[in-house]
Parts: sequence; structure tokens; C-alpha cells
Amino acid sequence: MSSSTKTANPDLIRVWEETEKNRSLFEREVRNLPLPVKKAFIENKKIAPAGFKPSEEKLAENRDLNRVAEAFPKLYPQTGDRVLKADIANRPLVSGKRVAVLFSGGPAAGGHNVLAGLKKALGPDNVLLGVKHGPKGLLGGSLFEIKEEDLNRLLNTGGFDFLGTDRTKIKNHGQFKLVKAVCRDQRVDALVIIGGDDSNTNAAVLAEYLFENVHADGRGVQVLGVPKTIDGDLQEGALLPISFGFDTATKIYSELVGNILQDTPSSRKYWHFIKLMGRSASHVALEVALQTKPAIAFISEELEEKKLSLHQIVDIICRSVARRAGRGINYGVILIPEGLIEFIPEMKILIKELNEVMADSARLLSELNTMAEKKDFIYGKISAESVKLMASLPHEFENMLLLDRDSHGNLQVSQIPTEKLLIEMVNIRLHEMKVNPAPFIGQAEEQIDLAPEEVERFVKSRFATNSHFFGYEGRCGAPSRFDAAYTFNLGLTAGSLALAGKTGYMAAISALDCGGEALALPLTGLIHVERRHGRDEMVIEKALVETDSPAFKYFLSVRERWAGEDCFSSPGPRQLWGPVAGQLPITVALNQGCAGLDFDLGEETRII
Amino acid sequence: MSSSTKTANPDLIRVWEETEKNRSLFEREVRNLPLPVKKAFIENKKIAPAGFKPSEEKLAENRDLNRVAEAFPKLYPQTGDRVLKADIANRPLVSGKRVAVLFSGGPAAGGHNVLAGLKKALGPDNVLLGVKHGPKGLLGGSLFEIKEEDLNRLLNTGGFDFLGTDRTKIKNHGQFKLVKAVCRDQRVDALVIIGGDDSNTNAAVLAEYLFENVHADGRGVQVLGVPKTIDGDLQEGALLPISFGFDTATKIYSELVGNILQDTPSSRKYWHFIKLMGRSASHVALEVALQTKPAIAFISEELEEKKLSLHQIVDIICRSVARRAGRGINYGVILIPEGLIEFIPEMKILIKELNEVMADSARLLSELNTMAEKKDFIYGKISAESVKLMASLPHEFENMLLLDRDSHGNLQVSQIPTEKLLIEMVNIRLHEMKVNPAPFIGQAEEQIDLAPEEVERFVKSRFATNSHFFGYEGRCGAPSRFDAAYTFNLGLTAGSLALAGKTGYMAAISALDCGGEALALPLTGLIHVERRHGRDEMVIEKALVETDSPAFKYFLSVRERWAGEDCFSSPGPRQLWGPVAGQLPITVALNQGCAGLDFDLGEETRII
Repeated sequence: MSSSTKTANPDLIRVWEETEKNRSLFEREVRNLPLPVKKAFIENKKIAPAGFKPSEEKLAENRDLNRVAEAFPKLYPQTGDRVLKADIANRPLVSGKRVAVLFSGGPAAGGHNVLAGLKKALGPDNVLLGVKHGPKGLLGGSLFEIKEEDLNRLLNTGGFDFLGTDRTKIKNHGQFKLVKAVCRDQRVDALVIIGGDDSNTNAAVLAEYLFENVHADGRGVQVLGVPKTIDGDLQEGALLPISFGFDTATKIYSELVGNILQDTPSSRKYWHFIKLMGRSASHVALEVALQTKPAIAFISEELEEKKLSLHQIVDIICRSVARRAGRGINYGVILIPEGLIEFIPEMKILIKELNEVMADSARLLSELNTMAEKKDFIYGKISAESVKLMASLPHEFENMLLLDRDSHGNLQVSQIPTEKLLIEMVNIRLHEMKVNPAPFIGQAEEQIDLAPEEVERFVKSRFATNSHFFGYEGRCGAPSRFDAAYTFNLGLTAGSLALAGKTGYMAAISALDCGGEALALPLTGLIHVERRHGRDEMVIEKALVETDSPAFKYFLSVRERWAGEDCFSSPGPRQLWGPVAGQLPITVALNQGCAGLDFDLGEETRII
Repeated sequence: MSSSTKTANPDLIRVWEETEKNRSLFEREVRNLPLPVKKAFIENKKIAPAGFKPSEEKLAENRDLNRVAEAFPKLYPQTGDRVLKADIANRPLVSGKRVAVLFSGGPAAGGHNVLAGLKKALGPDNVLLGVKHGPKGLLGGSLFEIKEEDLNRLLNTGGFDFLGTDRTKIKNHGQFKLVKAVCRDQRVDALVIIGGDDSNTNAAVLAEYLFENVHADGRGVQVLGVPKTIDGDLQEGALLPISFGFDTATKIYSELVGNILQDTPSSRKYWHFIKLMGRSASHVALEVALQTKPAIAFISEELEEKKLSLHQIVDIICRSVARRAGRGINYGVILIPEGLIEFIPEMKILIKELNEVMADSARLLSELNTMAEKKDFIYGKISAESVKLMASLPHEFENMLLLDRDSHGNLQVSQIPTEKLLIEMVNIRLHEMKVNPAPFIGQAEEQIDLAPEEVERFVKSRFATNSHFFGYEGRCGAPSRFDAAYTFNLGLTAGSLALAGKTGYMAAISALDCGGEALALPLTGLIHVERRHGRDEMVIEKALVETDSPAFKYFLSVRERWAGEDCFSSPGPRQLWGPVAGQLPITVALNQGCAGLDFDLGEETRII
């Protein structure tokens, strides 16, 4: 007997056909979940927009305020660096307003709930317009009205697919003019840009440009930002504890890493090298490390601070492998942030030199026929240190550095399989150590303290590896309870700001563990002067992992133990129901000084 | 301001330190979940072992029974092909029995609950021994007692790490003698082997060998199997609807594939080629396809049946890419079962020929210095068709086929990155199609029916790809509610069989949607004669996907639509609490003729 039946039950077929197009059993149930709503947005038990008033808070430590004031002559006097907070006493009574919203950059979980929050804040008397396909769609005027019934589709679902997104940067004059024309033609009163640090920087510039005179009556277009990025590098202390999408992405990656950790002592065969998405900052790697407790997790910012070389990083891995092998543990997990390579000073220099040579001599290089000739030419132009470093890399990576260039002639660092590079180099190094272990064993800092029988066990041990890259899996998952709640309230905040006539602010929610506080952060207060490509630019800085932050210091205090023995735990799949559904990211809770992991963003409220 | 605080809250630090070593907040809560227990295992509201009696059911269609009877002269007369079922009237009242349990092969979610079920069935008056590190540990006599308090550690957690596992096959006489000695020395009365088709085949042979005379009083050692494998290829119609671990693994992969599908129309940039674990059979790919509804999912068994060539498979992909591009959809997801390559007849022949040449001429080949010389030699020895096929493969894959051999001289097919091979070949083919589309457009079966403006859109379209391999992520996740319940009851069944003095049976649970039926399937009834390596072997056959099964036929009825437009849904992360926690795999529910997805395996019972 091979199948118990040769025909399916028609009832089940019917159930299943209904699950197509985002109506899985999970998606249908999750849309019915109530969401916490801050008191400021509740009036007579119904959702209502809040007003805003200045708070005591300023965006501290902004040393560049004078230059920002110069660059934003219209916006700065209105917004400055003073934070606004939601004001229940002063609700905007507005109708007929038209607010357009767009996604900018990579997707992050909760985007659809921002739209839902906006729609709910605007209510039936104002219009919410969706911009299709991100900034590019705005330039092309692809706007449509988002209706109340669309909430059924949007609520608590992952992805940015309801609108789509793209990576076009709106930053030059021609683009500004186009946006102005679109806003005038489609009678847009306010633009809400859901994006990361770059998109919010551009939002500030656009807010300045559209400050007045878009409409015949002299009104300008308001521009508001919403902080999105799974990388978690859009943060501002207590005022902006985290961007949305970070929690869901790290919970997804943490489950996967936890599952693999659980596999290691089960099958006792592999070291897994796992690269985690997060273009520059290592917030994702740090969060996943604290959640799962692997043998090794690299934090790029620390490597840069300590000026570690690639070979020193390889040595760190080899020492852990040898130490564990000495104890009979021939397995482990290593977390590698996506941006690692660029934080290794010598690699940064090498890549810069290569980019320059290859840009300067593009024509000459194209006339050389063989790889050997090209190498000879290039190696004659870069520093001796870089030549040496290149020569020390596995052959295929040497070629990769010389070949793959993007349309601007730059190396696409994110395309380098760092996890595989490290595996190759660790393999070579371990082989050297096993052939002649003596120089590596001892009590000096660069050595490993192993007893003779441990050395023997290490020398005989097998080192087998697997590599993984977790990235796309984490951007469009169904939002965690935290991201779902957080984004809905961000949407309510942004919608309220639009109705309150504010421009040049980013919506924010603080006090995540005690009721939440809806804030408006002045973009002019967030902007700093940064040296980019040899000139000063006004930008919202990426918030990197700080090595004196509570989260990093906690990691420092435990990682030595995690390297030597198995301390891992499995955080499991994120839960939308039950006792563990409401947790903040641990790095956020540590950095915010929270006493526990539970978030509290207001009263549970049925949305539809 | 960069961090809101420079010190973490000590209360939170304390909470977090307690999460090390498998005590994440999730893991602690999940251990308290009650599990359904079949009535047969409940007496006076407490868990008790069941007895067994013959049922009406036989393992049907076993054409090889006579030869099996010959090969198992002691076991067969006892077990035959008659299925036993749990018998509440006849509980075994046994004490002092020592039962040893081991994991064999790759991990699967729920293994720890099998141990918990065994322990509960044996109760305080019998001893459960755990074998460390699988069959190898059994040969080495690594046994220890599993205590009641270990249940706290085990219940509802993923992985096989409590015992460890390995892939040693116990199948020769020397090994049998060793096992006999270990059982005699450690006074083992029964062995429970938790494994896949191979391990259960070996369990049958061991059951025959240990049938008698291990103990001084003439008693033998009972051997029992428990059906485990994430691949889902250990199935037997209504009597064994599925092996454990399949549900959790496919739910994990389905979430990831669903997340990536949700990403595709969000960022509108990529085709994702996703390879899914599952060594031979495509059950995993079929389940994930039905859960997520991607553009394309290949089912190896169908490709073999239709005798498709690699180039025909590439054409299938290219037609879907072109059709969607014609509609402006420049993205999609393609699911590829891990074993695909071996189900393509021409590839199977090529690999076989290569293995033979390289084994026969190993010495000669090792004396040739260059790759070119080796190729010349090998190509002179294989068929013209194979030479042609080799020449049509991208260069690096050609080399891969010639180089990578395991210790037996065989190509490690699982190491071939099929997903990347297909990407390269599709890229080449699409380029040809875009340069000169005319021959590809039309209404013939091999052509694509596109309007002129669609052809133009396709020709201008961009084809960007990402590849993924999901495997290790799915083996050691926390068990789904179904796998947790199923494995606990499998453990109760195996423990009861041990106490009832049975040998040569595999524990099974049927009737998954209506209360569950605890069964014992005679291993001799499951065994068939199969031609392997040129000779007949007695094995439990791998259950492949049948192209006339209800699940596959349903897939057939919808896939054309899924290829042309977006129909996907996101199944979300598996839930342990809430309204969607109790779902069977859809392929299992379809093949079993269930009316819905909910499983029912008895009364919810608090275990600890």
C-alpha cells in the first residue's frame, strides 16, 4: 500500500484553494490580532489623530547645528533640534487632506502596518495615497488611493508588496522639480517616506525644497519620515530605540542560527560559518549572538577599533577550533556580519587602492589579455602591504577582487562570500597548526593553552564546514508582535503629524517598555556633517554598534565562555500568540535599561 | 545621544544569563505545553503502557514475502506481515526491564519527545538507557540511564543532542557480535532504534540476529524501530502516513520560502533559486510548494517519469521567466529538490559512467598531470551522449563532475550546487532567446505564446538571481505541535511494545485526524527485495512521490497558474500556541483523505 487513498477530500481542496494570494491560514488569523494603541491616539474608544507640542528633549550632542541651520534656511527655524511629543489636548480637526506614502530601500517587516496606522489616523475625512514602486514611482506620478477595505489585506502581513519599493535616491534638483510637479498635479499635501538613514536624509532635503509654494494658495508640501531598516542602524538613544524591521529579522535569523546550533552537538560533524545581512553595522550579528550564544560572533566595529588584520581574525577562529577540539568538541557556529570585510583596516585600504587603480587605468587594463598581465600591472600600482595581503588570499578570492566591479567601477563588497573566504583561510591555517603544533601551544596571548592530550586530540581532529548566508529570509517575514505594534503606532504618529501640519520630522516611539511615547524628531536635529568621497555632506549618520554600549559589554563578559564550551540556546520561531509573543530585542532592552523583555505600547485594540 | 543608558539593568542581565544552555524563554515555556495522549496509553488519568493484539490489517502488496520469510527464519514466523494494534485490555505488567534507545542518521525534530514517551511508558519500574552517539556508540557500549528529571530537559525541544547521533551502519557479522556482547554486558532487554529506511532495515536484521540466546536464560534482545526522517520518504499509506520530523522541517522551509516570495514583488528584482534538503524523494519540495505556491517547483519523480533532459528543465524555467517578463513580472521563486540531478536520466547515466571510469582507471588518471589530459582520457571512455552532455555544462560544473569523489570513489551528488548550475544555464539560454526571440515564440509546446509587446518587454527585461539552500535549518528546530504530539505517542508505542515483549516491529500512529491509532508494523512486512549495486538486497524501500497521489495531482492542477501569475501565500512561522498551531502537512492531509488540516491524537495531557 503506498497511498491510503487515491482521491483527495474535496472539502480540503476547497480550504486549500482559498489559501492562495496571501490567505494562508496563518495570514488570515494574524489579521485579526488586536494591536496595542497608545492612549494619545484613542478618543471615545476610537482611534483618533494626536496633536503635538514641544517636549523638554533636544537632540543632544549635535555639534553641527550651525551648519545644518545654514543648509536648511526654511526648515531649521521651524524644527531646529527640539523634539515634539504627542499632545492629547490638541487633536487636529482636519478634513480633505491628501497624504501620500512610499517605501524606500529594502523591505522590512511591519511596513504594511505603517500604512494601516496612517490610514486609521487620517480617518474617513482625509485621503491616503499610496505611491507605487518607491521613489521612482513618485517621480513617475504612480499614485492611487488606499481604501479602508485595503486594511484587510495589509494588517500584520510582511513585505512591501502592496506598494513595492525601490532604491532610487531623490537628491538632485531635477528630481525635486519632478516631485513638486507630481505633488501639485495630484494635490498632495504631505509626503510620508518610509526608509532608512539615506532616505530620511533625502526627506529632510525634500522638506526644505517643498517647504512652500507648491500649491496655488502658497501652501507647501509637508515631508515626514518613518524609521525603517532591518540593519538597526537608524537609532538615536532613548528617543529612537530602534528602527522597525530589526526585531522580526533578528528573530528569524535567531531561530535559524539556534536550529543550526542545536544541530551541531546532535550530528557532531560541522563548523557552520553563518553570514548575516546588515550592510555596515553589526547590530544584527550582536542581537543574534545574544539570542543564540554561539562559539564566535564577530562584531565589525570592534575589529575596526582594534585594527585587526584578516589573519588575526583567522587566528581567533583557529584558536577556538583548537581549544574545542582539545575537549572533543569538533563543531561550532561562527557569526559573520555582512560588512565585516570593510571594517578590517588593511582590507579597506586594499579595496580602495584597487578601486582607484582600476578606475584610473580602465582602458589600459582592458587591453591586457591575460589575468597574469593584469595582475602584474595592478600590483605595480598598489602599496607593498596590499600586494602582500593579496598574495596571502586564496586564489579565487584574489581573482574576485580583481574582477567584479559594479557600474561605478567599485568592488561590490557585499558580493564577496566572506564566510567562504574565512573557511578557506582557516582550513589552511589549521593544517599548518596540525603539522607542527608546538609554536601555537602555550600561554602567550597569541597561543592556545592546551594540555598534551588535548593537543593530540586536536591534531587528530576533523574540521568540516558548512556556510550559510541569511538575508532575504528576514526582510519580508510576518512582523513580530513588537514590530506589528511598533509600526502601527509609527503610522498613527506619522498620520497625526501630517494632519497637525508638521514637516521635516521623523515619527518615533520611545519608552517601549512602559506605555510608549509618540514623538516627532526634527530631521534637522538628526543631521550631521560627514566626510564622504572627500567632501562634507549633510547626512543622518548610521548608528554603529558602540563598544561601550551595555549590549556589547554584556557580550564581552560572556563570549570567552561561549567560545570554549556549548552554552547555546534556541530562541525558537517567533510566536504571535502565547506567553513569549511580546519580547523586545535583547540588545534594545539592554541599551534602554529595561528591566525585562516585555514591551508595552498601550491598550490592545481591535483594528478592523 | 547615542545610547540612552551606559549601564544595563541588572535584573535583565540576570534574566538573560539564565537563558544559556537551552533555557531560552521559548524553550522554558514550550516544555510546559501539554501533549495529546492517545486513550490507549491512559489508565486512571495516568500514562500507562498499552498491550497489543493483531489487527485486520496486513502490509499489502508485498510480493517478496516468501524471500523475506527465508531471510528472516526466526523473526518472520512471529511477525509476518500482520499489523498489531494497541490493546487497552491487555496492559503489560512488567518491571525490571532495561530498554536502550539510540538515534541513527540525520536529526529530525521530535526525537527528544520519543525519548520522553519511552520514559513515560516504561514508568519508574523499568529502566530507560540512552545510547550516546548513535550506532557507533552502541558498538562502543556508551550507555547511560535516562532519569525522570531529564524529561525537563527533553520535552518539546529540537535536536538529537541529548544523545547525539551518527551514520554508522550496523550490518555485518562482526558488528552484530559486538552489539550482542554489549547487550549481554549491560543487560539490555530491548533496543529501540530511531531512524530512517536504512536504519529500520538494519533493525530488522539485528532483530533476527538477537532473536534469542543473548541472556543466560535463553532470552534474546527485542529490537524495535521508530520512523524518523525529515525527507518524508518512510511512509506506508494509511498505516504510516508520515515519518516524524517532516512536518517541522517543511514548516521551517515553508516560512523561509514564503518570506522570500513576499520579498519578490516588494523589491521586484530577483528570481530566487531555492534548493531544499531531501536526499532522493521530493516530498519536502512538494509540501513546501503547496504551502507557498511559487512560480516553479520541480518534483524529481515526475522529471524521471517524463525522462526530461537537463536542457528541457532549463527550458521550462526560461519559458516561465519569459512569460512573466512579458507581463512585467521580473521575479519569481523556483524550488529545486536536493536530489534532482540524479533523477534526470541522462545525468544519471553520465554520473554512473564517470564513476566507473574513474574507479577503473584511478591509477592511470593520477599519473596524468593536466586537467586537459584527464579530460581527454575520460572522454575517450564514456558514451558519446555523455561526452556531449558534459560539453554542454558550464565549465566549472564540468570540472566539478571530474574532481570531487568521496572515499568510495563516487561523485558526491549532494555537493553539486544544482541551484547554481541551473542559474548559469538559464542565463545562457535567456541570452540566446533575447538575441533572437523569434524561434521561441509561438503556440507549439516548446514555445511561449507571447504578444509582440510582451516579447519586447521580455527582451528588454533584466534577469537577476539569488540562490539558497535550506537544509540544516530544518532538522533541529523545536518540533511543531504535530511533531511534538506524534513523537511523544510514537515513544509511548515503542515503550509499550518493549514491555509487551515484541520484537521486529516499527512503532506507528495512524488516523492522525481522528484520535490516532497506535500500531506496530512488522519490519518483515515492510521489507522488499531491491536491486542495489548489481545484486538483490532486502530493504525497506524509500517511498517516493507518486505522480498519481492526491497531493501531486492537486499540484498538477494549479501549477500552470502559479507559473504565470503571483498566487503565493506566506505560511508564517510555525506557532506553538494560538489558532494555527495544530496543522498537519498538506500533502499528508491530501493523501490521507482528511477533510481538514487539524490533527487529533488524543487528550491533552500535562506530561511533567
